[in-house]
Amino acid sequence: MTTLPPADATPDAPTPIVGILVGGQSDLRVMNAAAEMLRQFQVPYELTLVSPHRTPHRLVDYAESARKRGLRVIIAGGGGAAHLPGMVAAFTTLPVIGVPINVATSIGGLDSILSMLQMPTGVPVATVALDNASNAAVLAVQLLALSNARLADALEKYRAALRDKVMRTVDELRKGGLDDI
Amino acid sequence: MTTLPPADATPDAPTPIVGILVGGQSDLRVMNAAAEMLRQFQVPYELTLVSPHRTPHRLVDYAESARKRGLRVIIAGGGGAAHLPGMVAAFTTLPVIGVPINVATSIGGLDSILSMLQMPTGVPVATVALDNASNAAVLAVQLLALSNARLADALEKYRAALRDKVMRTVDELRKGGLDDI
Amino acid sequence: MTTLPPADATPDAPTPIVGILVGGQSDLRVMNAAAEMLRQFQVPYELTLVSPHRTPHRLVDYAESARKRGLRVIIAGGGGAAHLPGMVAAFTTLPVIGVPINVATSIGGLDSILSMLQMPTGVPVATVALDNASNAAVLAVQLLALSNARLADALEKYRAALRDKVMRTVDELRKGGLDDI
Amino acid sequence: MTTLPPADATPDAPTPIVGILVGGQSDLRVMNAAAEMLRQFQVPYELTLVSPHRTPHRLVDYAESARKRGLRVIIAGGGGAAHLPGMVAAFTTLPVIGVPINVATSIGGLDSILSMLQMPTGVPVATVALDNASNAAVLAVQLLALSNARLADALEKYRAALRDKVMRTVDELRKGGLDDI
Amino acid sequence: MTTLPPADATPDAPTPIVGILVGGQSDLRVMNAAAEMLRQFQVPYELTLVSPHRTPHRLVDYAESARKRGLRVIIAGGGGAAHLPGMVAAFTTLPVIGVPINVATSIGGLDSILSMLQMPTGVPVATVALDNASNAAVLAVQLLALSNARLADALEKYRAALRDKVMRTVDELRKGGLDDI
Amino acid sequence: MTTLPPADATPDAPTPIVGILVGGQSDLRVMNAAAEMLRQFQVPYELTLVSPHRTPHRLVDYAESARKRGLRVIIAGGGGAAHLPGMVAAFTTLPVIGVPINVATSIGGLDSILSMLQMPTGVPVATVALDNASNAAVLAVQLLALSNARLADALEKYRAALRDKVMRTVDELRKGGLDDI
Amino acid sequence: MTTLPPADATPDAPTPIVGILVGGQSDLRVMNAAAEMLRQFQVPYELTLVSPHRTPHRLVDYAESARKRGLRVIIAGGGGAAHLPGMVAAFTTLPVIGVPINVATSIGGLDSILSMLQMPTGVPVATVALDNASNAAVLAVQLLALSNARLADALEKYRAALRDKVMRTVDELRKGGLDDI
Amino acid sequence: MTTLPPADATPDAPTPIVGILVGGQSDLRVMNAAAEMLRQFQVPYELTLVSPHRTPHRLVDYAESARKRGLRVIIAGGGGAAHLPGMVAAFTTLPVIGVPINVATSIGGLDSILSMLQMPTGVPVATVALDNASNAAVLAVQLLALSNARLADALEKYRAALRDKVMRTVDELRKGGLDDI
Repeated sequence: MTTLPPADATPDAPTPIVGILVGGQSDLRVMNAAAEMLRQFQVPYELTLVSPHRTPHRLVDYAESARKRGLRVIIAGGGGAAHLPGMVAAFTTLPVIGVPINVATSIGGLDSILSMLQMPTGVPVATVALDNASNAAVLAVQLLALSNARLADALEKYRAALRDKVMRTVDELRKGGLDDI
Repeated sequence: MTTLPPADATPDAPTPIVGILVGGQSDLRVMNAAAEMLRQFQVPYELTLVSPHRTPHRLVDYAESARKRGLRVIIAGGGGAAHLPGMVAAFTTLPVIGVPINVATSIGGLDSILSMLQMPTGVPVATVALDNASNAAVLAVQLLALSNARLADALEKYRAALRDKVMRTVDELRKGGLDDI
Repeated sequence: MTTLPPADATPDAPTPIVGILVGGQSDLRVMNAAAEMLRQFQVPYELTLVSPHRTPHRLVDYAESARKRGLRVIIAGGGGAAHLPGMVAAFTTLPVIGVPINVATSIGGLDSILSMLQMPTGVPVATVALDNASNAAVLAVQLLALSNARLADALEKYRAALRDKVMRTVDELRKGGLDDI
Repeated sequence: MTTLPPADATPDAPTPIVGILVGGQSDLRVMNAAAEMLRQFQVPYELTLVSPHRTPHRLVDYAESARKRGLRVIIAGGGGAAHLPGMVAAFTTLPVIGVPINVATSIGGLDSILSMLQMPTGVPVATVALDNASNAAVLAVQLLALSNARLADALEKYRAALRDKVMRTVDELRKGGLDDI
Repeated sequence: MTTLPPADATPDAPTPIVGILVGGQSDLRVMNAAAEMLRQFQVPYELTLVSPHRTPHRLVDYAESARKRGLRVIIAGGGGAAHLPGMVAAFTTLPVIGVPINVATSIGGLDSILSMLQMPTGVPVATVALDNASNAAVLAVQLLALSNARLADALEKYRAALRDKVMRTVDELRKGGLDDI
Repeated sequence: MTTLPPADATPDAPTPIVGILVGGQSDLRVMNAAAEMLRQFQVPYELTLVSPHRTPHRLVDYAESARKRGLRVIIAGGGGAAHLPGMVAAFTTLPVIGVPINVATSIGGLDSILSMLQMPTGVPVATVALDNASNAAVLAVQLLALSNARLADALEKYRAALRDKVMRTVDELRKGGLDDI
Repeated sequence: MTTLPPADATPDAPTPIVGILVGGQSDLRVMNAAAEMLRQFQVPYELTLVSPHRTPHRLVDYAESARKRGLRVIIAGGGGAAHLPGMVAAFTTLPVIGVPINVATSIGGLDSILSMLQMPTGVPVATVALDNASNAAVLAVQLLALSNARLADALEKYRAALRDKVMRTVDELRKGGLDDI
Repeated sequence: MTTLPPADATPDAPTPIVGILVGGQSDLRVMNAAAEMLRQFQVPYELTLVSPHRTPHRLVDYAESARKRGLRVIIAGGGGAAHLPGMVAAFTTLPVIGVPINVATSIGGLDSILSMLQMPTGVPVATVALDNASNAAVLAVQLLALSNARLADALEKYRAALRDKVMRTVDELRKGGLDDI
């Protein structure tokens, strides 16, 4: 595994179980949110760059070694002709979550969405909303929670926190009235 | 659980771990393929009808009881303003896989895709390709295989079978020549 | 009804008859225009936040209690996979008016439009133009005016005022000439 | 009113309170469903043809006389550059419900949807799903039910019937199993 | 004709033969270019505001009196549900040129384009490119030039000027080289 | 003019004043309607095939000689990358009317529409509705009627006939009732 | 090269210089036209199946060995999330021509087009029209003709033949008149 | 050839073998990247302006003389109704590469893409990604490299450089950690 050590591995760090992949450096703007969310859930992850078209062999190596290296879920983001999640899925049977990214030259984001959503039978990509890397991380946690009671519990708490935040806004609306908004 | 027994429960049947939901009867045309695929993988499932707009309380009951009833993944299909997967996801933290369906009055399938894909942060739907219920089932198996060695192995065999089928067509193309196709 | 007092209820305030719902705090930017328009028509309203995916039980409670609490029309705005108006409509037979909102990660607004417009038979959402919360309020007034002579009259005056404003611009164009514009 | 007697007026017939308009004869294929639904709810209606581009004066007359003739809601369908509901709305303050129709030369129905949905402030059209004239009628009944207890009750019964129909299919799925579908 | 004097009529001014209509004041930003182009060709025009939904009777009056008042071509711009050119065309047999405008809440301009382009048989609108009011004016001049030798000649000169401008840029590219651009 | 005699010229035939062009033989299915409409208006026309990509020099010759040969308006239809009307317009200052055609491999007709609508300043194409060659002919008649009293009168009669046809359907609806439709 | 002999290699057959790839067997319906066109130009080709998602290693092998095996151009067709041409391009610097295919579950063909067109800098795919495999072959011949006088000449003759076919239709139109079409 | 000397020809300059065409001066913003890329590969080129609609004869002359003047590939960019590459292709059998440009009044870039992609059989345009003029140049180099060993080698080095750049970012991600990005 010398060619593919975890991106943030240190002697003490836990082995990553989620791999976050960006297809290009500019995608980090969007995909960092997935890392942030996984940190909140204390899920060890690695985040690295795998260009499907510029480093295709790295894509093959990454995807094929993912299971053996301990990864259980892969999150991959991309814009335009976004082949990264679909091609990673072709080289592993681990679940792959795709994050379509609305890059500058994208056709309203539709190219990114459709080129990862419309996968053929047998090789699905679990696609989430445009630019919503946070949701890819939440989905990854949901998958891991199927066999991890701590995460299942953390998800319930996360949902409760979302609910509480809504209710706080409801209270503010009630108190402050419309004009204060 | 008297109101929500597994759709195909029999005394001897194993408890379903995947719930397949259709929003309307006509969606069965597409969603039966998910059931067929799960049968191939010997994954116990239930398939039933939950209309988000005509039986919204049933949706709440189904989604809220899903985890306790033993379900681990929910697959939900729908067309048009396809609210079923997203609203099921709102009532459970189990992973929800969405299958957009291209119904007769759909806007080229885009309405179905976008109304399940574009979920807000915290409540993702793992969306697969238009009308591709088979892939929803394969994705469900991939999730279950994270903690099930038999399914992990079955997935590898399934992929190998897909590969072999491609190679048989390659052979036929080689032998028969173009004119025989 | 302790859990759902009118958002802006005061001892002297009239009971709201229109409920304006936003799915998220950021939608207030657009939806405040509905409140402003209702104030112009002196229609008592409440404005509050109901997240269909983060507070789904609140959605059920709100929609189911709406009629009993005196509401006669519900206006609901949302962006992306905009399930709020459609799911509110599933829990009440009051008319529901939907305002599609063009949020930052929306697909040109089409996702918002289609996920509220394309409702199945029996549970319609009266959808208005993208980001046009004012028109949702005007439509609500039109519905209320069916049994309220004051509002019917106010609508005629409102239309006349729109007409007069156009005619003033016509006059300015005529006097000032093109170069002054 | 000699030029605009109710389309189906007979000495004994009740005065129509809903006007159903088609822009062209071929739209009857879709719009008849609105009439059928109103008959179910025993709401007196008239159905007639008003071409916005071929009989524009008839449109003006129809819309301007609608209120005086006793109409309370107008349902208007159209395809392509579907100006009928929007222009009717310009000549009356009665609520106007638009049914976009996917005609043969339509751009996937998007032209019909957008040319009635995207109305300017002050003159809304309550737009329903593509080709869903039934839902326009249900929406009309919802508006009328605001001041009509019989219709409010009938709507609850209609919803219950929709629910029951779903539950019968659920039962059939449960009994017959997947293979019988 | 007291209600509809030419917008810029003065005792000495020639009678307008082209009417430029905007549906709202904000459309002047785009439509002024049509006036500017007509001035270049010395074609007398009037520019005024006719809101199809807020001043529909003014639309009827304008369109019906246009021929008698001496107009020979009408240019009408609009955004969103852009009914102005189509409804003007319904009330006159003069040629009507439509300019779709990409307003802030437009769906990428597609709503504006489709709601004026997709007119039914018998009542065409000659639609030009999005926001291209200049081209509407050029088209108007082309129509007028069919029976006006001066304009036919002016058009040739205009084309030659366009050609010369391109050739000057070609020369600059040739001399200055790429780096100077 | 030996290379470009009028397509249907006979010793007695009047000189064509409208040229109808198809880009390919299959477009005749749609474009014949333009010829049929012009015959109704007794406007002499020629209909021929000019492929912009396969016979580009013929396009140049046709467009450049059009005015001298007596043509006053050119109608050109095309599908996909529909360059015919735009390139004809580049070689003549006669008005060019474009008919976008929804060919089998078209992207819902949008490619045909956009590739003739979105012309640059100075060289407009008067675009009509998808597949609506009849309307291109009506528009051509409207242009010619600017200097032809017979056509101006014929247009009024044509409109009246359209109106009468609508009114006959109105009568049938009134008499026969809904059930007979 | 035992694993990748030319698909139609026989002892006497020339070595293929164009590789035609389909992503799935059903794509042959469209892609056979590329083979047919290359046969017309007497360009030796091979046609085979390479599924990017089911046989990804075969894709790597095919693309990486293509140059050494004598191929000079690769034509690849695909539908939906059409990754084949883009991923082949990632593993070779030979020119890759992409043919987007409008499969049954495609979003109007847009998914196929955008997922091969929108490639990142450095790894282009030369994309041709939807379903137009013939044009991919013509483009391949144009590339080969850059260093092959026979093909350059054949292309001129092919164009002349296209031109002649148009002119024969022109003649038929002229003789037969419109009514015979 | 006096009318079409190479745009940047000097006594010492090599004869251009790639022609880069812009349809308008504003397209230089995008198309300069093609020139820059060709300079990197030391491929002699010329860059000039050919407006298909304003200087159509120049288009004919340019395209018809291209082969004789030594050009081997033509790159043409355009926005809106982007006829330049397709019409150049109609007048030459040299390969033509199209760069769709997302101009201000473009419909999300779709008009530019579709009006150059959707060419009819026999006259292909090799279309690359929206605004990606660099890729048009890379594709041109790939074509030229079919008969030029230096370019074939340079392409491999270019790909290696792209790969190296990705790997340097990978290293930075590994060292710096996520927080430094």
